[in-house]
Amino acid sequence: MLFKVEMKVNVPNDIDKELFAKQVDEEKMRAKELQEQGIWRHLWRVAGQYANVSIFDVDSPQTLHDLMMSLPLFPYMEVEVTALCHHPSSIHSDDR
Amino acid sequence: MLFKVEMKVNVPNDIDKELFAKQVDEEKMRAKELQEQGIWRHLWRVAGQYANVSIFDVDSPQTLHDLMMSLPLFPYMEVEVTALCHHPSSIHSDDR
Amino acid sequence: MLFKVEMKVNVPNDIDKELFAKQVDEEKMRAKELQEQGIWRHLWRVAGQYANVSIFDVDSPQTLHDLMMSLPLFPYMEVEVTALCHHPSSIHSDDR
Amino acid sequence: MLFKVEMKVNVPNDIDKELFAKQVDEEKMRAKELQEQGIWRHLWRVAGQYANVSIFDVDSPQTLHDLMMSLPLFPYMEVEVTALCHHPSSIHSDDR
Amino acid sequence: MLFKVEMKVNVPNDIDKELFAKQVDEEKMRAKELQEQGIWRHLWRVAGQYANVSIFDVDSPQTLHDLMMSLPLFPYMEVEVTALCHHPSSIHSDDR
Amino acid sequence: MLFKVEMKVNVPNDIDKELFAKQVDEEKMRAKELQEQGIWRHLWRVAGQYANVSIFDVDSPQTLHDLMMSLPLFPYMEVEVTALCHHPSSIHSDDR
Amino acid sequence: MLFKVEMKVNVPNDIDKELFAKQVDEEKMRAKELQEQGIWRHLWRVAGQYANVSIFDVDSPQTLHDLMMSLPLFPYMEVEVTALCHHPSSIHSDDR
Amino acid sequence: MLFKVEMKVNVPNDIDKELFAKQVDEEKMRAKELQEQGIWRHLWRVAGQYANVSIFDVDSPQTLHDLMMSLPLFPYMEVEVTALCHHPSSIHSDDR
Amino acid sequence: MLFKVEMKVNVPNDIDKELFAKQVDEEKMRAKELQEQGIWRHLWRVAGQYANVSIFDVDSPQTLHDLMMSLPLFPYMEVEVTALCHHPSSIHSDDR
Amino acid sequence: MLFKVEMKVNVPNDIDKELFAKQVDEEKMRAKELQEQGIWRHLWRVAGQYANVSIFDVDSPQTLHDLMMSLPLFPYMEVEVTALCHHPSSIHSDDR
Repeated sequence: MLFKVEMKVNVPNDIDKELFAKQVDEEKMRAKELQEQGIWRHLWRVAGQYANVSIFDVDSPQTLHDLMMSLPLFPYMEVEVTALCHHPSSIHSDDR
Repeated sequence: MLFKVEMKVNVPNDIDKELFAKQVDEEKMRAKELQEQGIWRHLWRVAGQYANVSIFDVDSPQTLHDLMMSLPLFPYMEVEVTALCHHPSSIHSDDR
Repeated sequence: MLFKVEMKVNVPNDIDKELFAKQVDEEKMRAKELQEQGIWRHLWRVAGQYANVSIFDVDSPQTLHDLMMSLPLFPYMEVEVTALCHHPSSIHSDDR
Repeated sequence: MLFKVEMKVNVPNDIDKELFAKQVDEEKMRAKELQEQGIWRHLWRVAGQYANVSIFDVDSPQTLHDLMMSLPLFPYMEVEVTALCHHPSSIHSDDR
Repeated sequence: MLFKVEMKVNVPNDIDKELFAKQVDEEKMRAKELQEQGIWRHLWRVAGQYANVSIFDVDSPQTLHDLMMSLPLFPYMEVEVTALCHHPSSIHSDDR
Repeated sequence: MLFKVEMKVNVPNDIDKELFAKQVDEEKMRAKELQEQGIWRHLWRVAGQYANVSIFDVDSPQTLHDLMMSLPLFPYMEVEVTALCHHPSSIHSDDR
Repeated sequence: MLFKVEMKVNVPNDIDKELFAKQVDEEKMRAKELQEQGIWRHLWRVAGQYANVSIFDVDSPQTLHDLMMSLPLFPYMEVEVTALCHHPSSIHSDDR
Repeated sequence: MLFKVEMKVNVPNDIDKELFAKQVDEEKMRAKELQEQGIWRHLWRVAGQYANVSIFDVDSPQTLHDLMMSLPLFPYMEVEVTALCHHPSSIHSDDR
Repeated sequence: MLFKVEMKVNVPNDIDKELFAKQVDEEKMRAKELQEQGIWRHLWRVAGQYANVSIFDVDSPQTLHDLMMSLPLFPYMEVEVTALCHHPSSIHSDDR
Repeated sequence: MLFKVEMKVNVPNDIDKELFAKQVDEEKMRAKELQEQGIWRHLWRVAGQYANVSIFDVDSPQTLHDLMMSLPLFPYMEVEVTALCHHPSSIHSDDR
């Protein structure tokens, strides 16, 4: 099943730059991993913002939640989750 | 280039049911056509609402606008457009 | 899996009273049916408003969407869907 | 009587990690206690957020307030309270 | 227990003036009745708006809901309910 | 004349606890004083929040402003002021 | 005492043009009258909108409310009232 | 001096199509006229919406208001006006 | 020409009290100066908030901007600017 | 293609003044550069705020995003991007 997840990263002004850089790298690796598993199906950058629009293919909201908690940048994120389903006018039965 | 377009359809209470049914059919055909052309790349239904989340692959905002104007249900829609681009953590060079 | 669904019913001022009364009855029967099937797990009235807070136990957002579309009063509703999951502090493994 | 309480936890970036971990543990114990007493009737996690949806069964708003004040994580919370009551279409006379 | 209820009356432009005048009278009588019973404890007009701020003293949200449903002008109202309780700095033990 | 004033106290995370405790005590005394003078006519706690709903009986907005400025916790407050007046359906000529 | 009142006029699409024109004229006369009495102290048009910013000098919120109710265009208005008082940096003791 | 004006056109569902088509034509001519006079300096369509972003070069808010009132489609518009001025980093002394 | 400017001052909790007091004094002198020049035409305090409603009489938005930048408390302000013009029902040709 | 970008700069209270001044200078040079290249087509200051309204002429959202990321003040910005296109009533074929 699919969920749209929009993530906006708010970087505190007084953050430890080194720590944050490390977290960004870890986030990148984690995202790569989840995409390769087909879980993080789509990942796009919102033009002009430190934010993304993502589509996750998971077996339950619980799985979605657990993977969101696993993201190193989660503590800096505003997250909005929208449950999706097949649109009657979609020609893609797998909703790709 | 990609645009996320969220469309919420507000059906007036006093609408002509027949006319609207016809417009819904036309909308379906138009959506099918644009998907087959690869323009309307993704189309998902928002669970629980008469709304969709779509990703369009167009060559400019102008093209996006013209095709939105071509949708029979446009007059009943609240539309939100977000310009997207490649996310540095995306493993999909074509942003599929 | 669980979804919180909040439904606010906006009754148009110029509605056909008889038709609406019929739809309210049908809604009641439909709600009864879904509760008996254990799908519509919780249904509470928001004090002071023509609105409810519901918890649905469904196998996917698609199922949730289809049943929402089956509600006779859906055309008059503002709907907000929130995906839920097990809270680590909950003592109810079945999230009852 | 029932109240829906939505709690969103905003963890300050410069918080004392140790103190906060201790408060999280205390929160868990307090939640367990209140659930076992049947006061905190339902507790669900909002998928993708450090937030919960809860249903409290208390004898008055005062009781609700006092127990909210007793939550160790209260100082970090945005709280929204909605008074609920029996829905005429609910088949559960005890509103379970 | 006390609830603050804010009611904003939106009068549709095409309303039947006679019917509405009758409903306003009925509302006034109902309000008088509830005030005399000590249920509708406080009723103030918001200066400059067709809206009021009220404090209800009821035994449960259910009672509050039922009496709100009994108000002839309810169909035209936007209603906001806030559960109140004793303030530790209040010198009025009965919260008058 | 009456004003509804809603005060929400946002306690900064890094506040000097001792100073704040002292300010809370001072606030309590000030509130007691104003209530005894009949100026702070009603004071209720919003269930579940560090916020209150108050009704002030003052001779002008200026008086209201000056007393708000005199509250030790004012610097931490979000304040919303609504001017009230007699409701035509109120049976209380003194708007008590 | 002074109140800022912002009034936005929403003209229904299906309004009786003649009736409305008559109400506009009556509004103009009423406004003139109140200005001449020094009650409606300032009246400015918001550039680009069918809205105004006004400052009323009245003896109480009740007076303000009554005069607002006397405005022929009140039924079409969204009204926002803000209580004002003397600013410590103002050089105008009469707040002109 | 420059003003950004954003105009969103909400077409009522039950509008007289012929009348509206005529008003659209008149709007087009009026817009052309004002652009040729250099008053309506920039006019862009918001992609996906019946809305525009415009920059007006006028000698005062009054002039801006009067010309907005002269637009045939004004009655259907939500309008937002923002006063602009020279940006210290702009290389265009005439703010073109 | 006239602009309504609403300024809300948010004083950071960890501010240098002495510095801020000095800035407040400077603000007061600057406000006095601009009022005496007839530029800052009206200045009122919003009852209950650290905010003001002001009317500026300037020759352009640029002048307005420059003087706002000259206010010592500007860094702590949320500012909202609304362009005003003569109201057809105003009896004051100078919009005083 | 054109994008409207509105940027609001929120300067943290505890910022390193020297560092920030340097970033402001760098921002100015970068803006100058982009304007000279015709990319940053229009740049206006919002009167009364530390904010701007800009129009960018870029070949894709990706280019827009990359240049926004290149702005030294980006970390302090709230950014809103709106895709624009040719307005049918515009007399400027190049949308200048």
